[in-house]
Amino acid sequence: MEELVGLCEGSVGKPVTLPELWGPCPHVRGCDPLSCPGGLEWLKQRLFRVGEDWYFLAALGVLMALISYAMNFATGCVVQVHNWLYREIGDSHLLRYLSWTVYPVALLSFSSGFSQSITASSGGSGIPEVKTMLSGVILEDYLDIKNFGAKVVGLCCTLATGSTIFLGKVGPFTHMSVMMAAYLGRVRTKTIGESENKTKEMEMLVAGAAVGVATVFAAPFSGVLFSIEVMSSHFSVWNYWRGFFAATCGAFTFRLLAVFNSEQETITSIYKTSFRVDVPFDLPEIFFFVVLGAVCGILSSAYNFCQRTFLGFLKTNRFTSQLLATSKPLYAALAALILASITYPPGVGRFMASRLSMGEHLESLFDNNSWALMTWNSSPPWPAELDPQNLWLEWYHPQFTVFGTLTFFLVMKFWMLILATTIPIPAGYFMPLLVYGAAIGRLMGEVLSAAFPEGIMSGGVANPIMPGAYALAGAAAFSGAVTHSISTALLAFEITGQIVHALPVLMAVLVANAISQSCQPSFYDGTIIVKKLPYLPWIRGRNIGSYPVTVGHFMNTSITTLAKDMPLEEVLKVVTSTDVTRYVLVESAESQILVGTVERTQLMQTLQAEPASWALGQQCCLQDLLAGGCATQPVTLQLSPETSLHQTHNLFELLNLQWLLVTSRGRAVGSVSWVELKKAISTLTNPPATKEASLGLQNKV
Amino acid sequence: MEELVGLCEGSVGKPVTLPELWGPCPHVRGCDPLSCPGGLEWLKQRLFRVGEDWYFLAALGVLMALISYAMNFATGCVVQVHNWLYREIGDSHLLRYLSWTVYPVALLSFSSGFSQSITASSGGSGIPEVKTMLSGVILEDYLDIKNFGAKVVGLCCTLATGSTIFLGKVGPFTHMSVMMAAYLGRVRTKTIGESENKTKEMEMLVAGAAVGVATVFAAPFSGVLFSIEVMSSHFSVWNYWRGFFAATCGAFTFRLLAVFNSEQETITSIYKTSFRVDVPFDLPEIFFFVVLGAVCGILSSAYNFCQRTFLGFLKTNRFTSQLLATSKPLYAALAALILASITYPPGVGRFMASRLSMGEHLESLFDNNSWALMTWNSSPPWPAELDPQNLWLEWYHPQFTVFGTLTFFLVMKFWMLILATTIPIPAGYFMPLLVYGAAIGRLMGEVLSAAFPEGIMSGGVANPIMPGAYALAGAAAFSGAVTHSISTALLAFEITGQIVHALPVLMAVLVANAISQSCQPSFYDGTIIVKKLPYLPWIRGRNIGSYPVTVGHFMNTSITTLAKDMPLEEVLKVVTSTDVTRYVLVESAESQILVGTVERTQLMQTLQAEPASWALGQQCCLQDLLAGGCATQPVTLQLSPETSLHQTHNLFELLNLQWLLVTSRGRAVGSVSWVELKKAISTLTNPPATKEASLGLQNKV
Repeated sequence: MEELVGLCEGSVGKPVTLPELWGPCPHVRGCDPLSCPGGLEWLKQRLFRVGEDWYFLAALGVLMALISYAMNFATGCVVQVHNWLYREIGDSHLLRYLSWTVYPVALLSFSSGFSQSITASSGGSGIPEVKTMLSGVILEDYLDIKNFGAKVVGLCCTLATGSTIFLGKVGPFTHMSVMMAAYLGRVRTKTIGESENKTKEMEMLVAGAAVGVATVFAAPFSGVLFSIEVMSSHFSVWNYWRGFFAATCGAFTFRLLAVFNSEQETITSIYKTSFRVDVPFDLPEIFFFVVLGAVCGILSSAYNFCQRTFLGFLKTNRFTSQLLATSKPLYAALAALILASITYPPGVGRFMASRLSMGEHLESLFDNNSWALMTWNSSPPWPAELDPQNLWLEWYHPQFTVFGTLTFFLVMKFWMLILATTIPIPAGYFMPLLVYGAAIGRLMGEVLSAAFPEGIMSGGVANPIMPGAYALAGAAAFSGAVTHSISTALLAFEITGQIVHALPVLMAVLVANAISQSCQPSFYDGTIIVKKLPYLPWIRGRNIGSYPVTVGHFMNTSITTLAKDMPLEEVLKVVTSTDVTRYVLVESAESQILVGTVERTQLMQTLQAEPASWALGQQCCLQDLLAGGCATQPVTLQLSPETSLHQTHNLFELLNLQWLLVTSRGRAVGSVSWVELKKAISTLTNPPATKEASLGLQNKV
Repeated sequence: MEELVGLCEGSVGKPVTLPELWGPCPHVRGCDPLSCPGGLEWLKQRLFRVGEDWYFLAALGVLMALISYAMNFATGCVVQVHNWLYREIGDSHLLRYLSWTVYPVALLSFSSGFSQSITASSGGSGIPEVKTMLSGVILEDYLDIKNFGAKVVGLCCTLATGSTIFLGKVGPFTHMSVMMAAYLGRVRTKTIGESENKTKEMEMLVAGAAVGVATVFAAPFSGVLFSIEVMSSHFSVWNYWRGFFAATCGAFTFRLLAVFNSEQETITSIYKTSFRVDVPFDLPEIFFFVVLGAVCGILSSAYNFCQRTFLGFLKTNRFTSQLLATSKPLYAALAALILASITYPPGVGRFMASRLSMGEHLESLFDNNSWALMTWNSSPPWPAELDPQNLWLEWYHPQFTVFGTLTFFLVMKFWMLILATTIPIPAGYFMPLLVYGAAIGRLMGEVLSAAFPEGIMSGGVANPIMPGAYALAGAAAFSGAVTHSISTALLAFEITGQIVHALPVLMAVLVANAISQSCQPSFYDGTIIVKKLPYLPWIRGRNIGSYPVTVGHFMNTSITTLAKDMPLEEVLKVVTSTDVTRYVLVESAESQILVGTVERTQLMQTLQAEPASWALGQQCCLQDLLAGGCATQPVTLQLSPETSLHQTHNLFELLNLQWLLVTSRGRAVGSVSWVELKKAISTLTNPPATKEASLGLQNKV
């Protein structure tokens, strides 16, 4: 693929088709003995039609899978070395403590410093920015392939800290995947040599987002759905198919590499579980699954609220804002030191299973035995070394029991995770949510299994409760509630390879989402709000008062128009006194009939190029300039002042628009951009006297 | 719910909110001792906010699940009675033959006659019509709740014929669900008392489509996704969440009823499998899964082609078209007689497992043992009675072996299924596709398992091949290829409760789709084409020549405009000589500046109401009439002749538009509807001299 890319780039101007590239050289073609017309030619044409950009989608999937696997492999090695060092360094507590803490501190400050030095905006998960881009706003800097390296190195360092810092991979990897998609999209456009407008490029980006999630978890279904839910508000089935194709290529390659590397015997899911299949749960347990969903929903709202508040606090507090502005690596080092000190295993860390990696956390929490019942009578000691066969022993402490450690884990990780998300490094925040949710579910499952050691009676037969199933539901519900998505349920099935709990998990996720969506904006939306990215809010279904609002109420009426019969001096005056990107061109100053738009840069160029003629003092007007070479863009879509807010909102969302002109009887009367729309929606949501309040009063009277 | 519906309908004009309905009567409210302000009031308001129409969605899911279960129960009883009759009638071949054939013949002719007598358009699956409706074209007749009964009765009769006729339930049930959604949507609008425009109603319909699929297979995920893939081209995440909620309610209720009826111990999937989990397949088998996908893709193209051709033949052939036009029950009876005679078990039917119901077909085909290996040395006799423990024995014949019966099944069912789809009864065509695909996969699996009895060696360890897994992949791939959807892969996992073959099945489905989508329109699109329903084709990615095409090239320039200064006589002349639904209103005959549109009916009414004044011979013009009370609608969205075909296509698809006006410098110059768009796209696809042909020539030179 790499050679192909090189080849294609060489011939920028001229349209080159892949058959030309892959076929024999042009001068040889005439005497090619193998050129067999008919069927072969037909097949060749069908397969090598570049217009159908399946090749690029497949390449995207395979490339990202290779990178994902390589990153996992590299970070795995670093983690192993760290573990070996920690084991072999001797029994001195100081040395052990230092070996435990220095490592993440060094890695994180390097990660922060390195990635910040290359690009200022590489911190965080990247999903909020991707979401903004997919809504049509181009943040050029975020898609530059140059940042790719910074992200890779930074993310590898973050991941190499293991579960000490407790951060994941999904967000930045999705961002990287979108970068790569944008790059391949540009290569594709060059190869075809067509200017295919923005739609095609956007299609690649959407596929890129799906590939990102799919290659991290080897989960094509939920990759596609999660990317849609989190990153778009509308999507076409056409994009969905392309996303599936790319995601499947990625997930397949990713798991194939594991087989080739002898980690796996065949292609399977990454956190395989072995839940009981015949009667996975008794009917009354559905109730507890729903309760679990509600608990996850409430906790996720609390989490989102605290996270946003803390992020706001860091920005407003004088000391921290200065620290974050001037010396990010120092902040990263300080935060890493705190987090690493707490997780030091011989210290507090032993109560929160800190010797496990994040993958092992998930694996152990999904265990289908009940720890509470297993430790009912016997109390195994805390193992001095990690026992790979009995990972769950890490969660047990003779005095605290499993309930104590799980509760302690939940309490501590709540603020530790919030602290970790504020470190300016490329890091994903989804995997920690999965683990946290799994711990919530596990705690509930263990409590239930202790309360009903025989299982819950229904229809004469009782089956013991599997706390692992609750962990699965908790993981899906909590991560779904924080990110406001339902496909995490599907993700839970895809990563465990079992779908026997389909309905209870889905119900838990729905309940959790219902609660969190009605209380708080999602984690990613929260970041968008805090970072002040361009963002078009939803019109909530409840605002029934929103239906009569029309464009006339909120459009921007102060548009700068240039009339065709305007003298050039006046044009120059307007151009120099304003700095909009384009001007609205109208027929004449009186009629104001819309003709089209002129870009400012082009107008400036033409004005500068023609000083000779208009310096002569001739009464030139804009019309002559336009006839002379300054191109006008036609306005392809016009609103009218009577268009409703809902219709406009739909248009902007569906077509990823930035700006539309409003005409009335042909006259340009205003314009609407997402700024006006946002303002209109926010006045709806917070009106002077809310409709609900008045309704409440009516009810009381 | 039913009472609620009645209650709401009573107060059509006045806005009624649910709290008013459910709360105590107004005159009692004042002295209600339980009215506790504060928290309770707040909770009540939050829960009973009708604007958030979750109640209606839940009601939709629960209602459809109840109906689905009741239908299954009823048809199950009828099938049991038939089986009992067939068993007990004695050994006389004539009697047995009669009991086998008369039953389906009677049921089908009744089904056809009854449903046709109530509504002429109740035949077929209904999905093509639902698809048309979801694209914005209102086919009023199809959503009338009156047809609901006809559909229920007709579908029950169809299903009661069992596997003799070999038809399913999904299509009509989806249609019924959409009808119910439309009805509940109307109730909702009345309850709120708001005219909330078409968007809200459409949202209910989309959810209805999801519920339909979900309550048949108890599969919420694939229900939502299948409905999206098959029935829409774009959708919003907002609709997707609502669909999930309704589908989960439906699927849960549907399975809960099975538990309550003691069919199941707990909530599980409907066709549970027990595939090996640890190493479900060896890596080299991936190749065979892909080959299976290709085979399914080719067969599905052949199936779609034959089905469409045969449907066309029936319409053009003089004899059959007359038969279908005048006596549909007779045609149904004839077809049923042919199909039942062939499936008569002591006759040819024994070679195609015709004693199994369709569910048992699927269950037996998903069996995880290899029949070829089991019958390698021993040859069990053909059982005289159906053995519920060893359903697979039905697929085995001592002389033919399993290969023979499976091949015979595939050959015969191919044309039998096509014949069955032409019978004018309410029937689903999806379930037969699943069974047919499973048989394709099973055949391939059995061949492989006979070819590699030890399994395929990879990495030293060999695991025996499970033909059931191929059956699963085949079912997903074939049904996916025929309907052009990918979510059938997910459906396969949801109905079997196992997801261990996630990647191979997905790859098979993708390959099958790639082949079938490049060869033939989907089954449903084919029906839309044959039935000549309004239908907006896709612009294929390959038509690079489509980008420069603009609205100016294909718009309809002959629009009927009415100028404001037109004398009334002239207006009357125009109105009587044309029969468009609305007229374009322009400022004056010379300027042609667009003002708005006037509906024909309204114009007629006003014209008829004001004959007095204009009979007086006064020189009235249209302006006076408009001032007098004839309302004009504003044009909320305008195209320009420079808008590209792609942009227009997107607009029409995304916003479900039917008609847009084109203006240039304020003047109304033309209009675009889906008819013009369709024509423009079809000239692109079949240009006088295709671009591809010329490319091919270039290559050869």
